[in-house]
Amino acid sequence: MRIQGKQYRTIWPNYQADKAVSVSIIDQTRLPHAFEVVTLTNLAEMVAAIKTMQVRGAPLIGASAAYGVALALLSKSEDSDLLSAIDSLKASRPTAVNLAWALARMRDCLMPVRPEQRAARAFEEAAKICDEDVVINQQIGIHGLHLIKEKIATFQQARPINILTHCNAGWLATVDNGTALAPIYAAHDAGLDVHVWVDETRPRNQGASLTAWELGAHGVPHTVICDNAGGHFMQHGEVDMAIVGADRVTASGDVCNKIGTYLKALAAYDNQVPFYVAVPSPTIDWDVKDGVKEIPIEHRSAEEVTHIQGISSDGKISTVLLTPVASNAKNPAFDVTPARLVGGIITQMGIFQPNKLSNQQ
Amino acid sequence: MRIQGKQYRTIWPNYQADKAVSVSIIDQTRLPHAFEVVTLTNLAEMVAAIKTMQVRGAPLIGASAAYGVALALLSKSEDSDLLSAIDSLKASRPTAVNLAWALARMRDCLMPVRPEQRAARAFEEAAKICDEDVVINQQIGIHGLHLIKEKIATFQQARPINILTHCNAGWLATVDNGTALAPIYAAHDAGLDVHVWVDETRPRNQGASLTAWELGAHGVPHTVICDNAGGHFMQHGEVDMAIVGADRVTASGDVCNKIGTYLKALAAYDNQVPFYVAVPSPTIDWDVKDGVKEIPIEHRSAEEVTHIQGISSDGKISTVLLTPVASNAKNPAFDVTPARLVGGIITQMGIFQPNKLSNQQ
Repeated sequence: MRIQGKQYRTIWPNYQADKAVSVSIIDQTRLPHAFEVVTLTNLAEMVAAIKTMQVRGAPLIGASAAYGVALALLSKSEDSDLLSAIDSLKASRPTAVNLAWALARMRDCLMPVRPEQRAARAFEEAAKICDEDVVINQQIGIHGLHLIKEKIATFQQARPINILTHCNAGWLATVDNGTALAPIYAAHDAGLDVHVWVDETRPRNQGASLTAWELGAHGVPHTVICDNAGGHFMQHGEVDMAIVGADRVTASGDVCNKIGTYLKALAAYDNQVPFYVAVPSPTIDWDVKDGVKEIPIEHRSAEEVTHIQGISSDGKISTVLLTPVASNAKNPAFDVTPARLVGGIITQMGIFQPNKLSNQQ
Repeated sequence: MRIQGKQYRTIWPNYQADKAVSVSIIDQTRLPHAFEVVTLTNLAEMVAAIKTMQVRGAPLIGASAAYGVALALLSKSEDSDLLSAIDSLKASRPTAVNLAWALARMRDCLMPVRPEQRAARAFEEAAKICDEDVVINQQIGIHGLHLIKEKIATFQQARPINILTHCNAGWLATVDNGTALAPIYAAHDAGLDVHVWVDETRPRNQGASLTAWELGAHGVPHTVICDNAGGHFMQHGEVDMAIVGADRVTASGDVCNKIGTYLKALAAYDNQVPFYVAVPSPTIDWDVKDGVKEIPIEHRSAEEVTHIQGISSDGKISTVLLTPVASNAKNPAFDVTPARLVGGIITQMGIFQPNKLSNQQ
């Protein structure tokens, strides 16, 4: 994706005389208020970057962990060094599925390799993980672009297509392109007139900060709205489709995604607005049938609700309290949208009706 | 309602030797972080209090305007003084229906009165407006309490009843008791075990600040949640009913209320959670049939979305920017919930099915 006219991924290696020596990332804790690239040269720095959420988003965490292994092997590359690096990285965000997956792949790839060749091989494999993520997301973009073109073909007169999204399933959460935003970037880059309604996505405001920022950086027209507003815009014909990502999709097509997704899906259904979910196929969990009953929902800190971070008039990033000191808050991080409200699941393999998903297993 | 164990209204006159000399209000711009009573002694101070939203909420604005007339007449009480005071007050918040209504009532009451008696008569009439508001809200509370008791009677075992509300339709918006919160206070004061889910209500956060504060001050157990979370709690049986206020209810039972109400009504309907709207009967607009098509929705400043106010760690009230500088925002202030999603309209006269409302005209 583009930032200030320059092409970027969210993570990349740096070379000196054909030898990889470091890895650069975009510090996502500074967004949307500052764009800062940070260069990491060792394992400890990558572990810290994952822990403090300088990198976040399941696919990007996986890619970062892979490069973390490579950085560790630059200085020490015996079997025990490799395994201990993997252990440190695995403990940095224990719940992320992609983290464990990427580390298992790095271990399987590197254990058979001689120690002196491991670092170079690790950089190769990390790059491969990144490239594969990009290809998957490009495929999602191509399939989603087809849906966007079909919709535009129904318009009586030329006008922008208005697409609503929730949270950040953009390129910042992946290596490039994003999942839910991949079709949007594909449409924009194809010269189509796309406008995005960006749900701010309380409590962590990934929409208002990350999605708005990355769309803006790439030049995609967008408008931030409160999570409360999407239903109103759908009632008034101002949303042509919704595309969101997902943390887990069940075999029956139920969609677990950022809290508030369910409310937008209800409003979309009530107003005949197509509601699409864009995911790489590994996000489909074939073992779960009833998403509402079976998927455990993470409850996060009440402080994410009672406090919020922004930039104050003196330009400093600052946190303010929103609620009375004595009031409690609760913070479920995800909800489950029943398959009956979902118009289609966009994967790298194509677009599937949620109730036909299990045919793809 | 009680604050720190003491009984309060949101507005009251102060007397010296049987003569009213000033009016006190609670400065709502300081809530929830500080409870401050402000005493107003003249017209200009009341106009400023309404303009800066130290007092807000349609019924309270009406009562404040009535007292504003009384304060004006303390110093000058000729016909022209009365009419010019009314003009100043009317211009303080031009869109509030109750403001115009209260000022018309004060003019009709005071024009026939001799100038030297007008101030005393104005304080009497303002007190009457306040008392009438309190009685209406008490009646809403009694009718709503009946619904709460019926619901509790269906419980298999003793547990709190969980009621969700959106925005602030509490006693801070009225003279006392509130509208949507009146049944909740009635239930709490009757010794019932009530717990309130308080939607924070972005962008202005009236739930997280005002509703949470007034429930806390009165001792009602409550939990602040993001606007995104209510659907999830309904799916999991953690919401027994929803009660909201309204800015306008149409003859066909459509409900215009704070943005986001529609999304909660959809979720309530999807989960068989009764969704009630509590309003004084003058809020019903008999001239409007289709709320979604006919009610114009106010769009407020984008800054309410892009910036937020809270208290910083040094104890100062401070405003922070949430979005990228280059991102636009849109801010519709209200939405319309179709009558088909509403379980009942609670007024001071009783509880009505939205589609039977026109029988009451």
